[in-house]
Amino acid sequence: MAKVGIVMGSDSDMKIMSKAADVLEELGVEYEMTVISAHRMPDVFFDYAKSAENKDYKVIIAGAGMAAHLPGMCAAIFPMPVIGVPMSSKNLEGVDALYSIVQMPPGIPVATVAIDGAKNAGILAAKILATSDAALLDRLKDYAKGMKDAVQKKSDKLAKVGYKQYIKEL
Amino acid sequence: MAKVGIVMGSDSDMKIMSKAADVLEELGVEYEMTVISAHRMPDVFFDYAKSAENKDYKVIIAGAGMAAHLPGMCAAIFPMPVIGVPMSSKNLEGVDALYSIVQMPPGIPVATVAIDGAKNAGILAAKILATSDAALLDRLKDYAKGMKDAVQKKSDKLAKVGYKQYIKEL
Amino acid sequence: MAKVGIVMGSDSDMKIMSKAADVLEELGVEYEMTVISAHRMPDVFFDYAKSAENKDYKVIIAGAGMAAHLPGMCAAIFPMPVIGVPMSSKNLEGVDALYSIVQMPPGIPVATVAIDGAKNAGILAAKILATSDAALLDRLKDYAKGMKDAVQKKSDKLAKVGYKQYIKEL
Amino acid sequence: MAKVGIVMGSDSDMKIMSKAADVLEELGVEYEMTVISAHRMPDVFFDYAKSAENKDYKVIIAGAGMAAHLPGMCAAIFPMPVIGVPMSSKNLEGVDALYSIVQMPPGIPVATVAIDGAKNAGILAAKILATSDAALLDRLKDYAKGMKDAVQKKSDKLAKVGYKQYIKEL
Amino acid sequence: MAKVGIVMGSDSDMKIMSKAADVLEELGVEYEMTVISAHRMPDVFFDYAKSAENKDYKVIIAGAGMAAHLPGMCAAIFPMPVIGVPMSSKNLEGVDALYSIVQMPPGIPVATVAIDGAKNAGILAAKILATSDAALLDRLKDYAKGMKDAVQKKSDKLAKVGYKQYIKEL
Amino acid sequence: MAKVGIVMGSDSDMKIMSKAADVLEELGVEYEMTVISAHRMPDVFFDYAKSAENKDYKVIIAGAGMAAHLPGMCAAIFPMPVIGVPMSSKNLEGVDALYSIVQMPPGIPVATVAIDGAKNAGILAAKILATSDAALLDRLKDYAKGMKDAVQKKSDKLAKVGYKQYIKEL
Amino acid sequence: MAKVGIVMGSDSDMKIMSKAADVLEELGVEYEMTVISAHRMPDVFFDYAKSAENKDYKVIIAGAGMAAHLPGMCAAIFPMPVIGVPMSSKNLEGVDALYSIVQMPPGIPVATVAIDGAKNAGILAAKILATSDAALLDRLKDYAKGMKDAVQKKSDKLAKVGYKQYIKEL
Amino acid sequence: MAKVGIVMGSDSDMKIMSKAADVLEELGVEYEMTVISAHRMPDVFFDYAKSAENKDYKVIIAGAGMAAHLPGMCAAIFPMPVIGVPMSSKNLEGVDALYSIVQMPPGIPVATVAIDGAKNAGILAAKILATSDAALLDRLKDYAKGMKDAVQKKSDKLAKVGYKQYIKEL
Repeated sequence: MAKVGIVMGSDSDMKIMSKAADVLEELGVEYEMTVISAHRMPDVFFDYAKSAENKDYKVIIAGAGMAAHLPGMCAAIFPMPVIGVPMSSKNLEGVDALYSIVQMPPGIPVATVAIDGAKNAGILAAKILATSDAALLDRLKDYAKGMKDAVQKKSDKLAKVGYKQYIKEL
Repeated sequence: MAKVGIVMGSDSDMKIMSKAADVLEELGVEYEMTVISAHRMPDVFFDYAKSAENKDYKVIIAGAGMAAHLPGMCAAIFPMPVIGVPMSSKNLEGVDALYSIVQMPPGIPVATVAIDGAKNAGILAAKILATSDAALLDRLKDYAKGMKDAVQKKSDKLAKVGYKQYIKEL
Repeated sequence: MAKVGIVMGSDSDMKIMSKAADVLEELGVEYEMTVISAHRMPDVFFDYAKSAENKDYKVIIAGAGMAAHLPGMCAAIFPMPVIGVPMSSKNLEGVDALYSIVQMPPGIPVATVAIDGAKNAGILAAKILATSDAALLDRLKDYAKGMKDAVQKKSDKLAKVGYKQYIKEL
Repeated sequence: MAKVGIVMGSDSDMKIMSKAADVLEELGVEYEMTVISAHRMPDVFFDYAKSAENKDYKVIIAGAGMAAHLPGMCAAIFPMPVIGVPMSSKNLEGVDALYSIVQMPPGIPVATVAIDGAKNAGILAAKILATSDAALLDRLKDYAKGMKDAVQKKSDKLAKVGYKQYIKEL
Repeated sequence: MAKVGIVMGSDSDMKIMSKAADVLEELGVEYEMTVISAHRMPDVFFDYAKSAENKDYKVIIAGAGMAAHLPGMCAAIFPMPVIGVPMSSKNLEGVDALYSIVQMPPGIPVATVAIDGAKNAGILAAKILATSDAALLDRLKDYAKGMKDAVQKKSDKLAKVGYKQYIKEL
Repeated sequence: MAKVGIVMGSDSDMKIMSKAADVLEELGVEYEMTVISAHRMPDVFFDYAKSAENKDYKVIIAGAGMAAHLPGMCAAIFPMPVIGVPMSSKNLEGVDALYSIVQMPPGIPVATVAIDGAKNAGILAAKILATSDAALLDRLKDYAKGMKDAVQKKSDKLAKVGYKQYIKEL
Repeated sequence: MAKVGIVMGSDSDMKIMSKAADVLEELGVEYEMTVISAHRMPDVFFDYAKSAENKDYKVIIAGAGMAAHLPGMCAAIFPMPVIGVPMSSKNLEGVDALYSIVQMPPGIPVATVAIDGAKNAGILAAKILATSDAALLDRLKDYAKGMKDAVQKKSDKLAKVGYKQYIKEL
Repeated sequence: MAKVGIVMGSDSDMKIMSKAADVLEELGVEYEMTVISAHRMPDVFFDYAKSAENKDYKVIIAGAGMAAHLPGMCAAIFPMPVIGVPMSSKNLEGVDALYSIVQMPPGIPVATVAIDGAKNAGILAAKILATSDAALLDRLKDYAKGMKDAVQKKSDKLAKVGYKQYIKEL
């Protein structure tokens, strides 16, 4: 069965990156999450990226901060889509990671999402798999409908109670 | 057969965006390219995004500059992956388009590539389709090998002629 | 009677966006506030923007953060002025929203105010309506005088008590 | 009759700022254009801003580059809408002017458009006047339809000739 | 006697701006501090800037945040040096104010100091007056010596106690 | 007689920096210009900064690009005002030099002007000397009047010929 | 014996800069740490930089914030490698210091590490000395192995307990 | 004999990167230059980085643009100093490469020089080797003296001919 690999450079990224796993679970997509530092364990990283296809990974989600090389190096080795999640850190608010991930040279794309956008990385991975999985596509449409309904409910409440009351209950 | 939709907001983007079409042709992926401005023809745009699934699009590549809303609005409607290409323009060097495309809110991902990175958008679309198309995956691996061989050739030439001679011939 | 529509993409924007409503109330301008996500409910959004003229809206104030498409998409559909309020969020301090709102392509202007500048959006909406409403223009002049008097009072107090005392009472 | 004042800090801004005048002519809106430097002739500037209401100005479009104070100082004096056009200059690509214009403090809004976005400033001024001028509103709708048709024509041509031919003719 | 005018756009700037007054007191330079908003009370501001020379001001220190026009408008009217202090605010960390103050067009300089650098503004004002006041120049040299001695003392302590102990006492 | 020292780190800065000399000549202020690199000849630089007071310098104008240390190191040694001119260079458009000059730590101010703003540096130096030189102050007022008249003339011409003709003659 | 000089402009940098000392101790490299402000005590600084070679320093690590001139001025005088650590401060998140340190003009390099990256500065100093010290090179390899093992342990734990449990224990 | 490895990701970087080779030749330091793309040929790259120590490399200079991973991945594998050269490219002026190179996580430093600063990379490599090579250190001191003399000559010429003549001959 198609699987999504979730990898991050440090366990300090896990609180954010776990949102990718959460949404994949919600959408019924199988995944495996691990912590591998491309900088601190380049050999282990190479094995991971090279063996990913054999482990039936169809998509890799890679999150990293600062000079974030993990997503791009995955994309250099793994032949299917790699999704990059730029992580914000103490300084620069994630712009360093964003540039390090999105500005890939011609030939080696990384599908980059927003800074700290791990949830969107999970949804994007599901959308990629849904290009050949009609049932998953249906679940994604239900998920989108759920998001719409949630906003609609807030909209209705605002119309009913007015903004002054609404703000008090925020 | 699975198709890639390529859409851009203005024909001034076509010189860059055509690189996505070029690489899709090289990789044997069917595509359709069109010009639709989400701002100047919102109804046409809505129809485009809504009918894309029925036209067997599996991926949409959307390129736009400045306050680039086309990719994100595609992603709001089309249920499968949308790849966004931030276009540089006269001022700001494409940072405005990059932020307008990559910083999508939770729930609506856009797979963003580098500023003016239309070629990578094409390759990424092919990689997405290759998650369920073994023959395309093989062609992608050949393509990657071709890139590697091209650099290796340059490396060999440098070793042979030295950098002073190499620069003269650049 | 002329009305101002206030719309935001998420109820998390309401604390800031309510300042637009507050100042419109103070200036005696009718308004309607709602929550509509252009990304999560594009159909609802389209109906909202298309029906705005029939609901006697003369101005729309749209607030959004990150890749902020709501103001620009309103401006693509609604034929009268749209005021955009870039909202700051966890990262990037609102620069992403500012660029996504202000850098509109030729033909589709959005009247952009400062990051988190919802109060100024309300005042600007009133100024727009005051171009054909002499009584409102008078109220705006009074409002401006009130602002001037408030600063003058602080200036007088500073002259009287000195800055060391003034700071203690801040 | 309602008039739009167009003012710029230097005649080096006129090539860009004239696009506001062009589009106002096209839309049948009366305007007056002048060159006044808030920094080099503050007294003249003050008289200009103070007398604008008596000259039946309903909107002022102010363009300036670098530390652009002209739009904000107009807004401090003129009680109706002021539209600010940040001009790009040799360094910083207009970000200095953008921040100097859009980041107005609470109470004194400037309706800011894109860097070098003088055409949009003209359209925005017309939209403001159209809130009380049905005929102008109709002309604006025609103008929007014209923009849509122009893109549609390009879209049709692309469908007919293909992108390779299209690019050759760009 | 030569005087320094200290002016700020809002009393929310006073905690920072008071550091200019503190250091001027320490250096024995007479000053007057006031709160005047160029945006909210342009007439009062104009009178202030025009009458400054008659009040024997030789230097004006002007602090402002966001789209900071106060220093530049002072420099447009007052013929002697104006020192600008960019104030940081909730978003953008003062870059908006820095650009609005430092990027003055040719002919109208503002002597800009660091973001929130009010103390340096005070010292710079004193250095300006010291160009014709030998006693003040001597006091400035003493002040510089005091700064040097303070660092030397820390350096000596570090040499004595070692950094582990030093950090504990920070 | 009071003198202004003009110093730059490289003769590649001279085309810009000469504008400071030009305006000082125009205003009748004595100056001396030299090229000294704080990085390449630190000893020579130290002697320059230390002997400046004895050479009757009252102000130093220092221009430098990239990691611009020359102005700040002058300010560390010379006890009177130092004016810093950030020079733009091939990359970063002078932001590196701006930050390296303006963001001085407490105690050591540099009076920073706009990127490439050498002309303003010259005017600022003259304004500083004018705090104790009534004749120079009068010349500065004449200079300001000249700037005003120049803009007024352009304004009059625009009123006479219209913008379409004006642009043709630009 | 070869020594590393650690110098910072202010004792407020010591909490960060001490990480360089910590890692040098761990790697068995001799060092001396001191506080010297290039701005506040230029003479002392000059003596420090000039005498460094005689004190057997082979590398200097210099940390500074804002307009950070200390590393570059060290590099102008000391003939062996200078490592620069840009310190973040209240505004601008260290970008000012980064540009002030890394953008050195041709001829005078500073080996720049990440913002607040003092630990890496220490490791880099050790790597420099290890080019001629085989025993130190071995210790560096052990240190790298230790980092790898630490991540591997986290990776193993994640595989064992799953991310939901892992996060709870963070 | 100690050698410096110079590696770049693409031969389009060679015009800039060759300046590192030029200065190493001038300083009598042996080097080897090659072109290896970490993204396009990760296996070749890995072999290069792993075998560098056995080839007697003591320092590696790695230049790359955009999402520049080459320097950081070298530093992850090679145990001695890696110098990173951020290359400017069509957009963003090299800030993307700068952040991708300098913002390395703790444990894996890259000695970063200025954008396009290949010449400084060569000098820094020589300074590193000079920590254990007295003859090379002498050559570096001569090189520094040469730079100083070159500026001194310009300074003398300026004193002799005046800036108006000097500029004409630039």
